[in-house]
Amino acid sequence: MNFTDDSLMLHTDLYQINMAETYWADNVHDRRAVFDLYFRKLPFGNGYAIFAGLEKVINYVQNFQFSDSDLDYLREIGYQEDFLTYLKDLRFRGTIKAMQEGEVVFCNEPLIRVEASLAEAQLLETALLNIVNYQTLIATKASRIKHVANGQTLMEFGTRRAQELDAALWGTRAAYIGGFDATSNVRAGKLFGIPVKGTHAHSMVQAYQDEYTAFHKYAERHKDCVFLVDTYDTLKSGVPNAIRVAKEFGDKINFLGIRLDSGDLAYLSKKARQLLDEAGFKDTKIYASSDLDESTISSLQAQGAKIDVYGVGTKLITAYDQPALGAVYKLVAIENENGEMEDTIKISANPEKVTTPGMKKVYRIINTNNHHSEGDYITLEDEDPNQAEKIKMFHPIHTYISKFVTDFKAVNLHHDIFQNGELVYEAPSLSEIQAYASKQLELLWEEYKRTINPEEYPVDLSTKTWETKMKKIESTRNKIRELT
Amino acid sequence: MNFTDDSLMLHTDLYQINMAETYWADNVHDRRAVFDLYFRKLPFGNGYAIFAGLEKVINYVQNFQFSDSDLDYLREIGYQEDFLTYLKDLRFRGTIKAMQEGEVVFCNEPLIRVEASLAEAQLLETALLNIVNYQTLIATKASRIKHVANGQTLMEFGTRRAQELDAALWGTRAAYIGGFDATSNVRAGKLFGIPVKGTHAHSMVQAYQDEYTAFHKYAERHKDCVFLVDTYDTLKSGVPNAIRVAKEFGDKINFLGIRLDSGDLAYLSKKARQLLDEAGFKDTKIYASSDLDESTISSLQAQGAKIDVYGVGTKLITAYDQPALGAVYKLVAIENENGEMEDTIKISANPEKVTTPGMKKVYRIINTNNHHSEGDYITLEDEDPNQAEKIKMFHPIHTYISKFVTDFKAVNLHHDIFQNGELVYEAPSLSEIQAYASKQLELLWEEYKRTINPEEYPVDLSTKTWETKMKKIESTRNKIRELT
Repeated sequence: MNFTDDSLMLHTDLYQINMAETYWADNVHDRRAVFDLYFRKLPFGNGYAIFAGLEKVINYVQNFQFSDSDLDYLREIGYQEDFLTYLKDLRFRGTIKAMQEGEVVFCNEPLIRVEASLAEAQLLETALLNIVNYQTLIATKASRIKHVANGQTLMEFGTRRAQELDAALWGTRAAYIGGFDATSNVRAGKLFGIPVKGTHAHSMVQAYQDEYTAFHKYAERHKDCVFLVDTYDTLKSGVPNAIRVAKEFGDKINFLGIRLDSGDLAYLSKKARQLLDEAGFKDTKIYASSDLDESTISSLQAQGAKIDVYGVGTKLITAYDQPALGAVYKLVAIENENGEMEDTIKISANPEKVTTPGMKKVYRIINTNNHHSEGDYITLEDEDPNQAEKIKMFHPIHTYISKFVTDFKAVNLHHDIFQNGELVYEAPSLSEIQAYASKQLELLWEEYKRTINPEEYPVDLSTKTWETKMKKIESTRNKIRELT
Repeated sequence: MNFTDDSLMLHTDLYQINMAETYWADNVHDRRAVFDLYFRKLPFGNGYAIFAGLEKVINYVQNFQFSDSDLDYLREIGYQEDFLTYLKDLRFRGTIKAMQEGEVVFCNEPLIRVEASLAEAQLLETALLNIVNYQTLIATKASRIKHVANGQTLMEFGTRRAQELDAALWGTRAAYIGGFDATSNVRAGKLFGIPVKGTHAHSMVQAYQDEYTAFHKYAERHKDCVFLVDTYDTLKSGVPNAIRVAKEFGDKINFLGIRLDSGDLAYLSKKARQLLDEAGFKDTKIYASSDLDESTISSLQAQGAKIDVYGVGTKLITAYDQPALGAVYKLVAIENENGEMEDTIKISANPEKVTTPGMKKVYRIINTNNHHSEGDYITLEDEDPNQAEKIKMFHPIHTYISKFVTDFKAVNLHHDIFQNGELVYEAPSLSEIQAYASKQLELLWEEYKRTINPEEYPVDLSTKTWETKMKKIESTRNKIRELT
């Protein structure tokens, strides 16, 4: 039997469906459950991450519905009719809160909080993680590169090396959120309005079998010219041919730049700059690409390379040095048989992996004197730190590290996205998201933002949250002890 | 203006469109061009790669047509009406030859050869690389894992950590080609017929707040049970609860296995095996997952771990230790103004990056005495090694490494995929592709297949191909010398 790819409901792990079936057969599927989506470790040794993926998450939730072909397939692999009938009518009726895209986020903060029937919430897990893990990873990588780029222009050039098509497309969007200026991916331009850039490749020079002719032909049709100069020999052939064509065309073209794509970029850029300046093209920019990332860009800058525009491909779009973010989706509360919400926990021998029970909020504590952030503060649902004169912030594991904060404003970072199945969120535009990320970074002291060995930004639990967690750990451990 | 995502024609780099425009404006867009798609370096230090991605490439080529919204977008960003009119009617009318999926492939072999009008061939580049780079990478990674797994069952569990949705889906398919047995991704099961597996997660145990109850409820609805035993404590709680439930249900369930997902898998698997055996569950299997890859699996085996089924996630689906394959797409011949085909070359200071000119074929030279491969042999289009009594095979860079081969059969690895725009290829089924990959690996001596420091498999140029290349290098270098 052949099935059409007409739905993403089965873009999930099989165990989600088997769990939903267990709940449904046991008639607990409609119990209220709360799941937190968060990561436990920042990627790349960075001091922060940039949250991305919400737009696609919203889209996924809005299309939460098994198609006929989904049900046909499930039937074929053995699911029974009674359960399939339940799935057929299933829609998302829950409530979702989330950070906004572009938010500066940290470990153990609920980026998304799903409050829904146990079955619905469970069925969202895999796709939400798939989306948020990748997009947040790339937005963060882009932000690191932006951080070292000293305001130079950054272009995303990675499509051909991306991990399949969605990664190329959504990775470009995430890169833009993280601070990139443009992309070569035309579809990303079409769908998201990201500026697109690109002129020609080596193949055009090869096709004309002569570099001068190739540049000339390009300039005949295109006003804006960036010539790729390394097909044969950058300094002996490429740059001189570019200059020759630019001189011939004069005002008829904008000789925007030359592009270096191989060789010693530091050396070549300095020599090329000299050649361009001597020929009177002082405003013509030097573009460079070739396996760049934040460390090679830093190194080029330290060497005094004369590069104005960086094209970043493979290392950004695949997050080459750490190609996965390990966000998880954990049950933190569930309705019991009496209709009351009960906290849940997952214990682990690894203290970092113990979950924090309960329905929680995340506040950013902003010092009203210096307008910088004192840290993030996780509270239970019914707490409002703005009602307090001062709050005690302490490290959730090394609790002796603590401080009292007065003169602060506590900003709730969660936004209402869905309420009882209804989308209630109006998303900002992509350029607003990019600007928001940049603005939020200004709240952080520089020590948290350096790309190597940053300080650890405080993400603290309120006293009530911490005590709730400790009690739950204790009661769960007692239960295990009774067993053994 | 808003644009619909109704076409993948703009899933390309902008420069492809600008080059096509240059060719069109210069009226050379319809000149015949030949491009080779190949990689220059094997991933993961492996001795071979497994080619994958052709199915999606075929699909892409069949849908080669700019949509109205594509053209509207291009108009908006400044392309002129005359060129847009040309694009509107553009269809792929070219010829494509390619390896079949599952083929064992090596450096510098044209995996795909596109022969088409210059503009058409150019416009395919980015998407073809995006698809083939990722899928080939993952099929190869899967094959490495398969190689060390000693026939144990391998499951793909990576969806939540994949780089966006397409990677999860197509990565799973590639993993299956490379030798995996099953996946947790239900959509991949639906679309590709890959067996899907999965039972429950930690959240189910948390939802019931009691491990025994959770296992019990699962068993009430599901005949086949694999219990995840590490939510609280693997040996003290998880395994005993699984055994208790299995004993209670007796023949009513198939107690297929327990799954370990954290902790010391070597130690826990041995202890769990003992507990299961003592309880009479000798056939119950032990599943393990937790950041596995070929090296951790090898290490577990060396430690005598009692694991029957490996679930592999992040490290496979992202190709964690090398998340990109660097395949390129290079112009190797083009029609000149007289209608004759001319070879083209790209020179580089890096000898590995110099292209091999001309329209080429790839033969696998199979020794008819021992039924193993002597190496691959790249010839020009008009050569047929089967006509020769003996062939000279020599290393294309270190030419003194050479041998004469007699008693051989030369198998052309290219298949006709498209002829003048028509699809002429009937693809094998996915399980046939998997079986083919496995069969092709049998042609290779073990020395090429070990995962660490394999021998270099010979990929040699025919004398004619080599001489053509040397002449072309010489003439191109002379041309550059004249310039300077």
